[in-house]
Amino acid sequence: MSHAGPADLLVEQVVGPDELVVGVDVGGTKVLAGEVTADGRVVRTATRRTPGRRGSVVAVEDALSEAVAEVAAGRTPAGVGLAAAGFVDAGRERVMFAPHLPWAGDPVRRRLEERWGVPVALDNDANCAAVAEDALGAAHGASSALVLTMGTGIGGAVVLGGRVWRGVQGMAGEFGHIQVVPGGRSCECGESGCWEQYSSGNALVRDARERMVRTPTVLSDLCAGDPDRLVGPMVTRAAAEGDPVARQAFESVGEWLGVGLAGLVAAFDPEVVVVGGGVSAAGERLLDPARAALARTLVGGPHRTVPPLRPALLGPEAGLVGAALLARAVPGA
Amino acid sequence: MSHAGPADLLVEQVVGPDELVVGVDVGGTKVLAGEVTADGRVVRTATRRTPGRRGSVVAVEDALSEAVAEVAAGRTPAGVGLAAAGFVDAGRERVMFAPHLPWAGDPVRRRLEERWGVPVALDNDANCAAVAEDALGAAHGASSALVLTMGTGIGGAVVLGGRVWRGVQGMAGEFGHIQVVPGGRSCECGESGCWEQYSSGNALVRDARERMVRTPTVLSDLCAGDPDRLVGPMVTRAAAEGDPVARQAFESVGEWLGVGLAGLVAAFDPEVVVVGGGVSAAGERLLDPARAALARTLVGGPHRTVPPLRPALLGPEAGLVGAALLARAVPGA
Repeated sequence: MSHAGPADLLVEQVVGPDELVVGVDVGGTKVLAGEVTADGRVVRTATRRTPGRRGSVVAVEDALSEAVAEVAAGRTPAGVGLAAAGFVDAGRERVMFAPHLPWAGDPVRRRLEERWGVPVALDNDANCAAVAEDALGAAHGASSALVLTMGTGIGGAVVLGGRVWRGVQGMAGEFGHIQVVPGGRSCECGESGCWEQYSSGNALVRDARERMVRTPTVLSDLCAGDPDRLVGPMVTRAAAEGDPVARQAFESVGEWLGVGLAGLVAAFDPEVVVVGGGVSAAGERLLDPARAALARTLVGGPHRTVPPLRPALLGPEAGLVGAALLARAVPGA
Repeated sequence: MSHAGPADLLVEQVVGPDELVVGVDVGGTKVLAGEVTADGRVVRTATRRTPGRRGSVVAVEDALSEAVAEVAAGRTPAGVGLAAAGFVDAGRERVMFAPHLPWAGDPVRRRLEERWGVPVALDNDANCAAVAEDALGAAHGASSALVLTMGTGIGGAVVLGGRVWRGVQGMAGEFGHIQVVPGGRSCECGESGCWEQYSSGNALVRDARERMVRTPTVLSDLCAGDPDRLVGPMVTRAAAEGDPVARQAFESVGEWLGVGLAGLVAAFDPEVVVVGGGVSAAGERLLDPARAALARTLVGGPHRTVPPLRPALLGPEAGLVGAALLARAVPGA
């Protein structure tokens, strides 16, 4: 296919540029809502705690309503976009399943649209982040991109020909559970050897824990000697301070990132690869070993260009910004 | 995305339905040319031997010209389509590299167009097979499909939204060299643990050889006791006759097919998966274990439908039929 010009993904905005649009990232522990301008700036935000998967649907949607109302501050939004941490159906009407939210096939989009009386757009959070990175961030100008969000696990989204490819069931981009080691580490999904068991925030902490037991370092101090208290940001900080165990953990997670990406690049042949999420705060410490492994293992080496591996630009607000961009494209009710 | 109606992939034909179009499959050992009607029937064929990678470009293109001329039988084709067993650039002008052909970045399309004085279309053979299966075969009516050709290795192509997704460099669908076993079997590509080392014609023969050394069976008779003389069709035949070693080899290759497909389905979320190529002659003996492994390992099990795994319908002529369909869409020179 031919290269498109500067990506104009879903930024064909039908909502007026001066109208209020609110984007909301709906996660397992909190809701983050923000007023997002037509050019993607986040003007003000509000947060509420979510009750998790064992909480009620009403409690989650009340938290959502409160956060949106706080951002709107008495104004009526022209649209609200929701970035949900879960499987969203191909029609983008329902959250079919979410590991940390009580929705299970609920017609979330329509129910909240009726509750609020304003147009609502819904998508998976990884897709929303990809929309934002494509329109305004690290994938801007690329005709195709793989966008990974490395948090607890691996979130993924696919931009092809300037559009998010959602798949026939809305489940494209579920990269985290691709098997990379037969009979490998067991995964919460019930299978074993999934990619996110080797390259993710959880994998980083697991790797660092195993190493610190064998080689006590500054990491032991950071978690007061208790490996169970170790969390990702401690590993990132220790690595920045030169801790060898933390750096080895990033080497391993970065190498596995590159090996897995080599398979995805062989399959999709994208123009760029964008990596965001909490783990990517380590920047080149994660991306350098990933680039080396990608270049080493990608098929067709001398006959192709290895796509650039870029850090995401929009940070933790990527999801809500993308959701707001989607809401700007939703026709008024 | 919404489901399209019956796929109309690239069958927007600008060449008149009664005009002669020739499709050619250009492989490492032979050229197979055929007259292909507007509705995809192969009317007559001609073959010529190709000299392999160490032969000259002139010799390959002479063989091509002879095969096309024999099929044309004095008529002037309105178009010729070429399905090349190699990497074709995104502009579909050049064969960048082919393991069994002497082309290496050659502007094949334009050169043959000038030589023959007729419009020429060029694409990778796996993409051509996907065009044919989508327009006329096992992917017909599907809005998206993964199409695998299991021969010596694994050829792959991706149909998304009714079009072949070729990737930014024309290299999408290179599934065979996705790593499935870290530090696994070494591969001709220079890496190790590639999928096609576990699921392909070569993998089938390798697996059967290893088993027959331990457990002599009818396979030993078929190859006159010499494992080096064992070839894929012998394994297919022995399995059909009930040979347990041959059946185990298909079980293993089929299981690996399903495990690898689970990763691709997680990434692409296609409507159907089509499997063709020589190994697929074994039909359900290959596809049954593949379906079981796909259903078992695919992420999101209870929240999604597992896509159907269908045998290809067009057989060894899929490549030339798809190439001819592409040629029918090429505007007249």
